[in-house]
Amino acid sequence: MQPTFRKVVIFGVGLIGGSFALALRKAGAVGEVVGFGRSQSTLDEAKRLGILDRIGNDVAAEVRDADLVLLATPVAQMDELFARIAPHLGSQTLVTDGGSTKCDVVAAARSKLAGKVAQFIPGHPIAGAEKSGAAASMADLYQGKKVVLAPLPENPQASVARVRQAWEACGAVVSELTPEEHDGVFAAVSHLPHLLSFALVHDLAQRDNKDLLLSFAASGFRDFTRIAASSPEMWRDISLANRDALLRELQQYINELSSLQQALADNDAAKLEEIFSLAREVRSTWTQQ
Amino acid sequence: MQPTFRKVVIFGVGLIGGSFALALRKAGAVGEVVGFGRSQSTLDEAKRLGILDRIGNDVAAEVRDADLVLLATPVAQMDELFARIAPHLGSQTLVTDGGSTKCDVVAAARSKLAGKVAQFIPGHPIAGAEKSGAAASMADLYQGKKVVLAPLPENPQASVARVRQAWEACGAVVSELTPEEHDGVFAAVSHLPHLLSFALVHDLAQRDNKDLLLSFAASGFRDFTRIAASSPEMWRDISLANRDALLRELQQYINELSSLQQALADNDAAKLEEIFSLAREVRSTWTQQ
Repeated sequence: MQPTFRKVVIFGVGLIGGSFALALRKAGAVGEVVGFGRSQSTLDEAKRLGILDRIGNDVAAEVRDADLVLLATPVAQMDELFARIAPHLGSQTLVTDGGSTKCDVVAAARSKLAGKVAQFIPGHPIAGAEKSGAAASMADLYQGKKVVLAPLPENPQASVARVRQAWEACGAVVSELTPEEHDGVFAAVSHLPHLLSFALVHDLAQRDNKDLLLSFAASGFRDFTRIAASSPEMWRDISLANRDALLRELQQYINELSSLQQALADNDAAKLEEIFSLAREVRSTWTQQ
Repeated sequence: MQPTFRKVVIFGVGLIGGSFALALRKAGAVGEVVGFGRSQSTLDEAKRLGILDRIGNDVAAEVRDADLVLLATPVAQMDELFARIAPHLGSQTLVTDGGSTKCDVVAAARSKLAGKVAQFIPGHPIAGAEKSGAAASMADLYQGKKVVLAPLPENPQASVARVRQAWEACGAVVSELTPEEHDGVFAAVSHLPHLLSFALVHDLAQRDNKDLLLSFAASGFRDFTRIAASSPEMWRDISLANRDALLRELQQYINELSSLQQALADNDAAKLEEIFSLAREVRSTWTQQ
């Protein structure tokens, strides 16, 4: 029996791309996996680990007859990648990506893929981040995890269904949002919290008594600031890529803090309790899905 | 051999007070533990669990000859407790507390203990919070945990040493700060993060699309908002009790967010990376002590 995807080409064989390959392979859903990347040593390691069948050396030849191309590089590199693959993309080849922001990737795809943009189905697997690199790849990384597809109006339904099929073969639970909805949602529940956590640690880090302060920080601080140990380069790029939505969230949060500030300045116990109570109710009934 | 503390009286037999009793008992450092509290069923349970030897019913008689009195109630009740015990406090009896804020407790002690204030050594064990109640009490709750003593200029060194001895018998690591230092430190590393976490969840909770947003929240959000499930009443009281220090921290944090907002609006990649990098460096080298 033919596998669902005869040939998959992956650009960027780190945690996201490597785990996608391993998961498809484990599901028996892929014939051949070909990888491209900036670092020869990563590619060699990925081949050694059984992530790749082959290390690609001719983009034109590889993307011409691929069933599926996954861009799993940092978002900042995708514009250039779209330009490189655009002239050679076969008419039956679908492209998807694993970027954390979608409107900027869609803009790059529209600009560089131009007439072939209908072949690009934007995606975002909600997984990983704590570890990275090919060596961290796991066949079950996506098991039970969410993947958001953010289809374009130009995408044929059958193409969206085929990319969905790939992620479902990896064990993921696939949802669909528009690119704008996606970026709004993740600005609120992911990008803003990262910014706030970085900001708190930065605020303390600049003080003369920072060692004293940090010596008394406990488990509340530990959890609140866990994400402040994330990659500065990655979060710089995500922040800028999703700038408009993030600026809206940041302003709304500053407004929220101003009303807390006012309640505190007014000794308004009832108002403080009301804010804390609603937060507690919502947080304690929320369960990660 | 006589135990170090012949008789200890505890007001408020919840997690903090109950664990203090169990730990002293386990260390063989206490002869008799007498408890007072608002809820008869909690007191009965504490007796049944071996936390208390006796449930007190005459404050005057019990505090007259106690070696040590621990106030382990919510901070808001301490003013009244100081007034209740003041007339009866024996000259050899020391008093300490377990409140999360110190300047307000010190003010209450000065006002109500008056001439006996030198017998009060303010304290703050940094432990607990996730669970509460007598039933959650553990003999090893304080093992390796920090306890801050915030002595008054009036306290004889020998009295401070004796309260330190009690907490060290519980396995705690004892530090000293002035009450003002204490409240400044905890405003920065504990009270502010709680406020920020409540504020984020409250911000999202008020939106029409809150269910959609929360359905895509993942592990970063989970950890950042864990403390937003804390007790609203307790954090209302802490916020108001440490209002001045907390208002200073909140303003400084809003300033920090304003400069992030500016960097983002300016597309200032270098500035964003600088802020994130310093935060990451400090957070990833920090270890909870």
